[in-house]
Amino acid sequence: MTAVGYRDVLAAAERISGLVLRTPVLEISPGLFLKLELLQHSGSFKVRGAFNRILSAGQLPDSGVIAASGGNHGLAVAYAAKTLGVRAEIFVPEVTSPVKVAGLAALGAHITQTGAIYSEAAEAAGKRAAETGALTVHAYDQAEVVAGQGTTGLEIMEQTGGVDTVVAAVGGGGFAAGITVGTEGAAPPPRIVAVEPQRIPTLREALRAGEPVPVEVGGVAADALGATRLGGLAFEILSGSRVESVLVSDEAIVAARRTLWERHRVVAEHAGAAAYAALVSGAYRPEPGERVAVVVCGSNTDPATLTATP
Amino acid sequence: MTAVGYRDVLAAAERISGLVLRTPVLEISPGLFLKLELLQHSGSFKVRGAFNRILSAGQLPDSGVIAASGGNHGLAVAYAAKTLGVRAEIFVPEVTSPVKVAGLAALGAHITQTGAIYSEAAEAAGKRAAETGALTVHAYDQAEVVAGQGTTGLEIMEQTGGVDTVVAAVGGGGFAAGITVGTEGAAPPPRIVAVEPQRIPTLREALRAGEPVPVEVGGVAADALGATRLGGLAFEILSGSRVESVLVSDEAIVAARRTLWERHRVVAEHAGAAAYAALVSGAYRPEPGERVAVVVCGSNTDPATLTATP
Repeated sequence: MTAVGYRDVLAAAERISGLVLRTPVLEISPGLFLKLELLQHSGSFKVRGAFNRILSAGQLPDSGVIAASGGNHGLAVAYAAKTLGVRAEIFVPEVTSPVKVAGLAALGAHITQTGAIYSEAAEAAGKRAAETGALTVHAYDQAEVVAGQGTTGLEIMEQTGGVDTVVAAVGGGGFAAGITVGTEGAAPPPRIVAVEPQRIPTLREALRAGEPVPVEVGGVAADALGATRLGGLAFEILSGSRVESVLVSDEAIVAARRTLWERHRVVAEHAGAAAYAALVSGAYRPEPGERVAVVVCGSNTDPATLTATP
Repeated sequence: MTAVGYRDVLAAAERISGLVLRTPVLEISPGLFLKLELLQHSGSFKVRGAFNRILSAGQLPDSGVIAASGGNHGLAVAYAAKTLGVRAEIFVPEVTSPVKVAGLAALGAHITQTGAIYSEAAEAAGKRAAETGALTVHAYDQAEVVAGQGTTGLEIMEQTGGVDTVVAAVGGGGFAAGITVGTEGAAPPPRIVAVEPQRIPTLREALRAGEPVPVEVGGVAADALGATRLGGLAFEILSGSRVESVLVSDEAIVAARRTLWERHRVVAEHAGAAAYAALVSGAYRPEPGERVAVVVCGSNTDPATLTATP
């Protein structure tokens, strides 16, 4: 019995229904499905967890919600807070690009730029939350967040009529963990292929060490998968026997992102293409007849980078 | 009784099943659906008609198939021919960009560049077909082509559970005509909103004149909607009482294309955004509670143009 169960995912689905999109599934060849979660509000799956966390909290203080992230999580919390009419404070490190800050500001969030790196911004957000009583929304290591992300798994099983395998990317692990729990209702439940960039192997190293450990973070997908260690909840769930850990190179991610555009007209960010990279690079090879769903999970990218001459 | 009937569309759906994608539908707000036909093979709906035309012909001569188009139709015929292992000759005018010619060549098509404008290339293709006996695949004015495009309408009704209105773009009119026929099975069948750029009003002028008449062609969507007159089959179908003609400005198309990316993470070409432009510009205003499907029908565009500074 883990801290997040299938019933939590079902409850999350009910709670966030109508607030998030039921993103479509595209069968690109017989039995191979792309779950187009990159078409989700705010450009990634992160709104599922954000809505579920905020709506699970009951009455919020006037200080609203608070999160640390210059990326998809920050956008998702700002989007959810705006939709629900709640105040949002987002802490981002000083290196965050003006474009991303402007995106957050456009969603009405109150932004504080502080700290040289993410962990310093996160620490400042924690102090601020202690002062104001604002509800913290963690990027991956909270039960309500994991349960919210897990609603993607429910939809995959419904929309495909069932698959043998779900392939999803891992950063802090909240998404893949949620999908693992969210597909438990199937009999038998699918294998979960948890895909990480070689340069950010939080799950691989956690499995090796027997617990989440810090890893060095780098490479093309670091802006969205660049957690320095796996979440504790994710470790509990992803160390189970249904989960297979797979690594992909940056080159495979770049190539998969390009193929997603050229062949399927889907514009993913690098992190969003990581799961598909496991397939096209052969890092994960389905058996003949295996039914596979690949989650394409983020689109917060400049599409110009797809066709610009290097 | 028109030259293309609902049963022709049903037969087309069976014929091309497994060769074209069942493109997904995304409900972006309650009762408002985007039919993401831009995710189709070759980047537009045109493969539906191309497959249906080729497969309806029975045994083909060694000379294969022939078409005139430097755009989506050419790509679709080349794609279908390659998939079916059939020879394809594509005639394009001399002005066709090297990128488009390379795209056709990559699909294995035999390309002839001739004529200053499209109609000269088309004339040359006609002469060539008369010599070789190759099967011509018209861009819009053939019954099998219209029936093939109509399978989009069948899918829309199935995937949405039924809508009151379908909004689709018109160039030569084969697509909107096919959808009109392909939605006849519903009771009552939906209204068809046929959207044209103000600068290419082939349907509007045909309705005014009582028959297809030549129009001047210009504006941002001319590369894909730039037919100089409506097809005869399309006129027969689109002059019916279920169809409403709507015009949109180039500015509305450009804005709608940008909104499709920024809000929905969908990368459409200008022609592909024309139908959506009718909604966001207010050129078509649904009633409260009206269920509407908007077809986003093409993605053969350089995504860099979405974010490049003008």
